[in-house]
Amino acid sequence: MSEFKLTTVEEFEAATNRLLETGAKVGADSWQLRVKNQTPHCKFGESGVCCRICSMGPCRITPKAPRGICGCDVHGIVGRNFLRFTAGGAATHSDHGREIAHTLYTASADGNYHVKDEEKLFRLAGEFGVETENRDVYDIAHEVAEKGLMEYGKPFGHQIFTKRAPEYTQEIWDREEIRPRAIDREVSCAMHMTHMGCSSKAEALIRQALRNGLSDGWGGSMMGTEFSDVLFGTPKEVETEANLGVMVEENVNIVVHGHDPSLSEMIVECAESKEMIDYAKSMGAQGITISGVCCTSNEVAMRRGIPMAGNFLQQENVVLTGACEAIVVDVQCIFPALGPLSKCFHTKFITTSPIAQMPDSEFIRFNAKTAGENAKLIVKTAIENFKNRNKDLVYIPQMKQKAVVGFSVEQIEKKLDTVTNTHVDKTGTMMPLVDCVKSGVLRGAVAMVGCNNPKIRPDAAHIELMKKLIANDIILVVSGCSAQAAAKAGLMDKRAKDLCGAGLKRVCELVDIPPVLHMGSCVDISRMMVLAARIAKDSGWNISQIPLVGCAPEWMSEKAVSIGNYVVATGIDTYLGVEPYAYGSSEVDGLLKGGIRDWVEAAYTVEKDIDKLGDMMIARIEEKRAALGI
Amino acid sequence: MSEFKLTTVEEFEAATNRLLETGAKVGADSWQLRVKNQTPHCKFGESGVCCRICSMGPCRITPKAPRGICGCDVHGIVGRNFLRFTAGGAATHSDHGREIAHTLYTASADGNYHVKDEEKLFRLAGEFGVETENRDVYDIAHEVAEKGLMEYGKPFGHQIFTKRAPEYTQEIWDREEIRPRAIDREVSCAMHMTHMGCSSKAEALIRQALRNGLSDGWGGSMMGTEFSDVLFGTPKEVETEANLGVMVEENVNIVVHGHDPSLSEMIVECAESKEMIDYAKSMGAQGITISGVCCTSNEVAMRRGIPMAGNFLQQENVVLTGACEAIVVDVQCIFPALGPLSKCFHTKFITTSPIAQMPDSEFIRFNAKTAGENAKLIVKTAIENFKNRNKDLVYIPQMKQKAVVGFSVEQIEKKLDTVTNTHVDKTGTMMPLVDCVKSGVLRGAVAMVGCNNPKIRPDAAHIELMKKLIANDIILVVSGCSAQAAAKAGLMDKRAKDLCGAGLKRVCELVDIPPVLHMGSCVDISRMMVLAARIAKDSGWNISQIPLVGCAPEWMSEKAVSIGNYVVATGIDTYLGVEPYAYGSSEVDGLLKGGIRDWVEAAYTVEKDIDKLGDMMIARIEEKRAALGI
Repeated sequence: MSEFKLTTVEEFEAATNRLLETGAKVGADSWQLRVKNQTPHCKFGESGVCCRICSMGPCRITPKAPRGICGCDVHGIVGRNFLRFTAGGAATHSDHGREIAHTLYTASADGNYHVKDEEKLFRLAGEFGVETENRDVYDIAHEVAEKGLMEYGKPFGHQIFTKRAPEYTQEIWDREEIRPRAIDREVSCAMHMTHMGCSSKAEALIRQALRNGLSDGWGGSMMGTEFSDVLFGTPKEVETEANLGVMVEENVNIVVHGHDPSLSEMIVECAESKEMIDYAKSMGAQGITISGVCCTSNEVAMRRGIPMAGNFLQQENVVLTGACEAIVVDVQCIFPALGPLSKCFHTKFITTSPIAQMPDSEFIRFNAKTAGENAKLIVKTAIENFKNRNKDLVYIPQMKQKAVVGFSVEQIEKKLDTVTNTHVDKTGTMMPLVDCVKSGVLRGAVAMVGCNNPKIRPDAAHIELMKKLIANDIILVVSGCSAQAAAKAGLMDKRAKDLCGAGLKRVCELVDIPPVLHMGSCVDISRMMVLAARIAKDSGWNISQIPLVGCAPEWMSEKAVSIGNYVVATGIDTYLGVEPYAYGSSEVDGLLKGGIRDWVEAAYTVEKDIDKLGDMMIARIEEKRAALGI
Repeated sequence: MSEFKLTTVEEFEAATNRLLETGAKVGADSWQLRVKNQTPHCKFGESGVCCRICSMGPCRITPKAPRGICGCDVHGIVGRNFLRFTAGGAATHSDHGREIAHTLYTASADGNYHVKDEEKLFRLAGEFGVETENRDVYDIAHEVAEKGLMEYGKPFGHQIFTKRAPEYTQEIWDREEIRPRAIDREVSCAMHMTHMGCSSKAEALIRQALRNGLSDGWGGSMMGTEFSDVLFGTPKEVETEANLGVMVEENVNIVVHGHDPSLSEMIVECAESKEMIDYAKSMGAQGITISGVCCTSNEVAMRRGIPMAGNFLQQENVVLTGACEAIVVDVQCIFPALGPLSKCFHTKFITTSPIAQMPDSEFIRFNAKTAGENAKLIVKTAIENFKNRNKDLVYIPQMKQKAVVGFSVEQIEKKLDTVTNTHVDKTGTMMPLVDCVKSGVLRGAVAMVGCNNPKIRPDAAHIELMKKLIANDIILVVSGCSAQAAAKAGLMDKRAKDLCGAGLKRVCELVDIPPVLHMGSCVDISRMMVLAARIAKDSGWNISQIPLVGCAPEWMSEKAVSIGNYVVATGIDTYLGVEPYAYGSSEVDGLLKGGIRDWVEAAYTVEKDIDKLGDMMIARIEEKRAALGI
């Protein structure tokens, strides 16, 4: 085994620069160039004080124009924009969950999709009140799917999964009137409240932003995660690799990108078939390599060990290698830039979802009922494109790291069971983890999530913060593009234990884990909520008392704000490296960074100095420890 | 009877100027001042080329920066903004419908809300597949309400009311994949499609904008209308008055403003009680006058003849009279300006809905279950405020017109029955109307709707267009603030027939109607859709063939765009006086103003020269006549 060494951000950047040279040769645009064109950004928009909600405007708040034409003040305008931002994210995540529920609804013993985790299905059936005795597993699956779909639109009642939270948390949600009702209703309610002539009170708008976020985290996203586990298996520890070096020059390279595993799972299955591999060989390739970008990548990495080519701001790089036969996308976080970029190379840019239709792409409509055929057509299209490569343009940076991924709550529980003294203690609890925290061997945990954003040096914030935290005996649970940054750097290699403080290092050795645990895609932040709830129940602490904070140092999307809102509303302080478009209102800013603590016992902190952000998280964790007397 | 004369826009303006003088005395702000502060508007926002959908930006498209950081081009950005604008409107209208459905669900023989139109309830039960035989009317009502609520969130199928459309129209909707599914799902889907990294293809975005609009017009809004009729009665011809002169100096003046009749109906009932009138007298007033602003006003005018104080841009005027004891609002189109403005007077600004919470207001939470008590508290609060008037500030412009309103489809049908030769023809059809159009006595019809917008001289476009159209034998069906403009001018007085061409004048005389028919509030544009469907069925024409166009000359809100989209998608050409924030993209602009005609047989026309706009509508109607050979 070669010596273990992290890959540095400087090395990432050198590789990117080399790829951009290829891009320059073919006249390709890049996000790096577009950032230059789009900078500086409009300060009205960035501070949230611009309103385009009706056609009397647009209006912009300035000292000389303190109110919009309707009379709305800056707090109302900023609050509305923030709530709409949240609604966009909550709708998006949740719609992903809905798609998976529809996929589950089509599952059948002889169809494209099967029930892989019956145990989880039965557990869900119990929660949803679905009868299981003497019933066909697919009948149960369909009824569970239907119940899940009703969570989007039921006329009465609240999200069923909110009952998974500790009683204490549920009481807060009821007291503050933020326990979410039907998911889509919360989205529509947010849109209605922000319509011209509706709510302009910051407090009301922020409260709905929390409720709408909760409908995502304890509703749509949680269903997305759970139903994906039922269909594709609950993630277990698995080895994989990360960074562009996972692409193989001699093979047909298909890159899956987006979020919904329904597509990528089918592509992987199809590409692994002898028929397709033989076909690839007949076309002059040595085989087929599937790799991933963004959360679709996380999904297939967590369940199948499919390698991760990169994260959000690396999506153009996979095309720039000149060795990508097809980049196949489903929904969310897909650069429309991939259209024109792919035209500079032989790469096929294949869109598949009616939700994400883009110019300069080939649209192969993916449908759960015809998934097998769709996937085959896509894989064949890629294979047949192998011959069109311009060999002069091919350059794959030989840079990758090993990573151990697959840390679902169930997997974490099993890992903890291995260090439980079964003569004395119950298995299937979070107590070993709680005990480590109580004893101080572990100081606490950070849930690090989210995207890349050119406003922050890409991946640097994720990686530097993680290094700092693990050195301070703080364990990381991560997801999304944050997870991929960690994997690319090498922080998901078990040998990364050597970068930890003595306490965490010992935990890594005993439990046999890396110090940064990959919990999945961005919808899988719901796993972290379940984990926090489990820890609270086992420890007797409230969630807000646990030495645990959330962090999204490079966040970019509306989904991230929806996530932030449900994490905070669950009682977990959340640290951001990028300002939301909300600082233009002292009231909204004040609520988010402090006022909401009176409602939900947690709030946001925003700090662009990443090193400082790390210090603040450590301080907060120590503060929570002190309050617990541990 | 005094001589009939229209009130002119100049007279409106003189009255407003007089009120603004009062405002100046007390240091009140006004929309007229705020428009000055907010002009010129941001051209990026106005043309739709500014994107704030993720936090990498904001991005703005210019010749030097033709793509956002993600690579989205101008068509994607403008298309997304347009779709979100639609989603805001569709969610808002539909959520109003949902509230009414919830009110219907609480109706009971001995409760606050009763079933007033059993016939309509039974008709709806038939459409929704609800059993009626041998059942209590309230059991039926509750099941109908529940079915209605399921239209918001049902996991499968399309909007039930779309079956009311002609087969031909339904086939278009299916062919173009725009028949709407669950209402809230279409909102969430719109938010998802417009999320960072999802759809950037103009065509896909505009198609969803039509579908989301249809989920409003043939879904949420239609339920809002129908359920309101069940609860509060289907409008019948009734006399009322309009303009500020309806306020009575000697009385306690309560102004209801907003959209949802659940509140205003209760207020009216309460204020008409002997107990409250006596209480008002005990406080020194001679009685209580309820008048309305915006669509809440239309609702109670159509059903109870409650006078209309004014429309959207007159909402500050009612406070400026100094004689408004309380302005009581529910949701939508309420100026946040009313908060600070009311503080300059004795006026109580009472907000009642969690959806519309505003600073500087008194919040009396209105709830269907406690509606009676809530209404009483509000009316008492107003009465007790009478003594706080500053008499020096009181000035009510003595300006009002008589109006005949209440033209639901059912009322129109009954009116037409009076001119049906029952020996030869069936009653209960639209044939007399169709025959008038065929013969050329009527050239056609214009459905005029929508708001005021300071970008257009307030009310002038509505009134001038109506005058021009009726002079050309084109009958008007109107709603919302357009209807109130007509009523204030006097165009809903039956004597306005004298302003019509000879054909329309004769129709007005024979059928005994004014030339401008008030069909209700903005959700009631669904009545116009039903009317168009009825005419199509009775005439054998497709909806797009009927010499009928839609027009919103002074539109302002997102709801108006949602409306425009469903009107166009129903096959009715729509004429606007204000540009949507979409002209920055040739593709989006081209689709809206032409391309979508290939899908739905209708499109938008935007023309700021109002006289020209009128000519274009007349030309289009004549073109449709020629195509029909009539």
